[in-house]
Amino acid sequence: MNRRQFNLSLLCGAAAIGLPRWRSQAGLRVNGPRIVEHLTALSQFGKNPQGGVSRVAFSEADRQGREYVVGLMRAAGLDVSTDAAGNIVGRRGGSDSTLKPLVMGSHIDSVPEGGNFDGDVGSLSAIEVAQTLAEHKITIRHSLEVIIFADEEGGTIGSHALGGEITDKQLNLVSNSGKTVRDGIKLIGGDPDKLVSVRRKRGDIAAYLELHIEQGGILDTEKINIGVVEGIVGITQWEVKIEGFANHAGTTPMNQRRDAMLAAAKFIEAVNRIVTSLPGRQVGTVGKLQAWPGAYNVIPGKVVLGLELRDLDAAKVQMLYQKIRDEASEIARLTGTSFDFTETNSIVPAPTDERIRKLIDEMAKSLGLSTKWLPSGAGHDAQEIARVCPVGMIFVPSVGGISHSPKEYSRSEDIANGANVLLHTLLKLDSVTLQ
Amino acid sequence: MNRRQFNLSLLCGAAAIGLPRWRSQAGLRVNGPRIVEHLTALSQFGKNPQGGVSRVAFSEADRQGREYVVGLMRAAGLDVSTDAAGNIVGRRGGSDSTLKPLVMGSHIDSVPEGGNFDGDVGSLSAIEVAQTLAEHKITIRHSLEVIIFADEEGGTIGSHALGGEITDKQLNLVSNSGKTVRDGIKLIGGDPDKLVSVRRKRGDIAAYLELHIEQGGILDTEKINIGVVEGIVGITQWEVKIEGFANHAGTTPMNQRRDAMLAAAKFIEAVNRIVTSLPGRQVGTVGKLQAWPGAYNVIPGKVVLGLELRDLDAAKVQMLYQKIRDEASEIARLTGTSFDFTETNSIVPAPTDERIRKLIDEMAKSLGLSTKWLPSGAGHDAQEIARVCPVGMIFVPSVGGISHSPKEYSRSEDIANGANVLLHTLLKLDSVTLQ
Repeated sequence: MNRRQFNLSLLCGAAAIGLPRWRSQAGLRVNGPRIVEHLTALSQFGKNPQGGVSRVAFSEADRQGREYVVGLMRAAGLDVSTDAAGNIVGRRGGSDSTLKPLVMGSHIDSVPEGGNFDGDVGSLSAIEVAQTLAEHKITIRHSLEVIIFADEEGGTIGSHALGGEITDKQLNLVSNSGKTVRDGIKLIGGDPDKLVSVRRKRGDIAAYLELHIEQGGILDTEKINIGVVEGIVGITQWEVKIEGFANHAGTTPMNQRRDAMLAAAKFIEAVNRIVTSLPGRQVGTVGKLQAWPGAYNVIPGKVVLGLELRDLDAAKVQMLYQKIRDEASEIARLTGTSFDFTETNSIVPAPTDERIRKLIDEMAKSLGLSTKWLPSGAGHDAQEIARVCPVGMIFVPSVGGISHSPKEYSRSEDIANGANVLLHTLLKLDSVTLQ
Repeated sequence: MNRRQFNLSLLCGAAAIGLPRWRSQAGLRVNGPRIVEHLTALSQFGKNPQGGVSRVAFSEADRQGREYVVGLMRAAGLDVSTDAAGNIVGRRGGSDSTLKPLVMGSHIDSVPEGGNFDGDVGSLSAIEVAQTLAEHKITIRHSLEVIIFADEEGGTIGSHALGGEITDKQLNLVSNSGKTVRDGIKLIGGDPDKLVSVRRKRGDIAAYLELHIEQGGILDTEKINIGVVEGIVGITQWEVKIEGFANHAGTTPMNQRRDAMLAAAKFIEAVNRIVTSLPGRQVGTVGKLQAWPGAYNVIPGKVVLGLELRDLDAAKVQMLYQKIRDEASEIARLTGTSFDFTETNSIVPAPTDERIRKLIDEMAKSLGLSTKWLPSGAGHDAQEIARVCPVGMIFVPSVGGISHSPKEYSRSEDIANGANVLLHTLLKLDSVTLQ
């Protein structure tokens, strides 16, 4: 967040510069059925016979899907190009050329055997907003950009190129397409040798907005229309190695065992208990586990498992981790085992801009929609762009909280609601004084 | 156990047939250092550079070790042959040709990267007992057999051929040597087409005695010289499949999860709690576990684990299993998962003969040794021979309770004590009336 370069005057400020234009556009709505039509058309590229889609970045399906989206962007009156990172950028000028652009975006690549809503809803809704403005011959003050970021699922590669620096290590990673990121970027029209041209400095963008499906079940369970995203949570992952002593499961009495599996079980239960013992939306997961030697009749002497903690507050993650470490020491003492923790990954939290959150909330309510403020447990392109400018994120409900699955689904009316909130938040942002 | 064909008169009965000869042989002792010499020599066959031995059945090391043992048996005055199952059988006639043989035995094959005491101690001690008798020109009433059973570690194959029927499925199993059991039996001089010739009927053997290392830590911890084995425990194994719902570890709130790993952790803890909640020597182990999809950032939707229960009392195993099933139902309810149990293996308990247990205890105490009655948690050839005749087993301490490991170790004095108990139990058995 960059408070010096960005000063929303909000209600009082808006009054100071006269009646904001968005008030006269309060009745404006996107064409909801058209978004759904476009989603259906896009779902054909990489469609799986058993449902859902495998449109992994840099695959032929990705290339074709991108071609389709470029067509939509041109039809929406955007001037389209592909940057060196492979991001598709659609631009339209504003009425005040001194202002930095307002940007909307998301991605259209999927995980293997994924669904048709993650990324696609935000991408096609951003294009729909641009098209709605064009159809109503509305030119906003700021220039407008719609960006379809490359390879979000492989590590927010395209948005990272815009907000930071892609390393050689990242370029050499083999993506799900089987190609390296470097070769993949070339395939979709980028140039991995010119990534520096993609980079934006702080202040180069006025603000960034992203609509996305929640990918969790909070909005659906609580029957809320719109999620106001407080930020993208930080993620820390540890490899936890538990050493006991492998021994004969028949001849070793229960009280003479140093059972690494029993210690692991107590640990997993403790992680769940500690994470759920505090108020808040933190999550803790043990998603993988391997035991050695791994036979019915041998007491495991070694277990290696994966621990992941997520929260919007990095200090809270550290506090939870310390509690978990303390309990692990006690489990080690009780079971005659030892615990060793190695941090394997850490992504810092990326809070959204508090002032944009309030605008999203206000616009949703003005459209008669219920809202809930919540963190995003998943990573998004917005977390990369947060390094450059203030960002806001809008969530729409995922039915059953299911994502990264062919069963991923968001209702058409929820998608239209989200796109309307995106439209009006953009107009509101355009109407206030940006420095 | 076959009470009709075997009637030990014990103390009163022995008095009825006059002063038992073993009383005049009370001072007889085996040559303890010679057993250790033989153990050291045998340890060369399949010796591992990093310690211990890999003398898996049907390997070249096994073949060489067997050759060495045949030499020892001949030197002990036994008439040696190999039966169709590959068992090495050493015979010597007794003074009363109407009596069925007394048999002592064990095995010399090892697990991969095993130790030098499991099986070897009992095999070489049985030969030592035969040699001690020969050196003292003692001919007992019963004929004597020392049997070195083939492929104990691969599923008590040789002893099973004697006590039951080897199936084609067992013959086609690929053993740790890389050969099928069928080809392995041929390699060591057996004939898999003539296994029926190996089979003994109930009553064909007067009694069977086996000395073995405990492979657990009870005797060592409690500083007891001799274990009187109450029987070989029954083993039941189940594959337990836990189904939850795989979901995004970032976006799925803690209270909306159906986490198969958390359910597995609660289950493993419950197994330990239930098994240790009752008095007795029953054991319960979860030795293997696999979780799907198995990533840091995905809540596991499926876990498959292995449950094993062992006890001398099959009814107790069933009772424990029922308690575990009940608790699994409760865990399923609490975690939104389902449990499915499939029995994959079941070996019935094989109790030793109570009268022989008493003889072993009496003989050990007459030698000034402390005793403890305990079950064998591991499988042994004796469990197969128990189908044919009354059996007795003698345990000597395993230092640290370690077995199936290069660190497996039993002290020389403990081995000599065990061999002397074997000798005197044999003499005592020979002196009493057998029907």
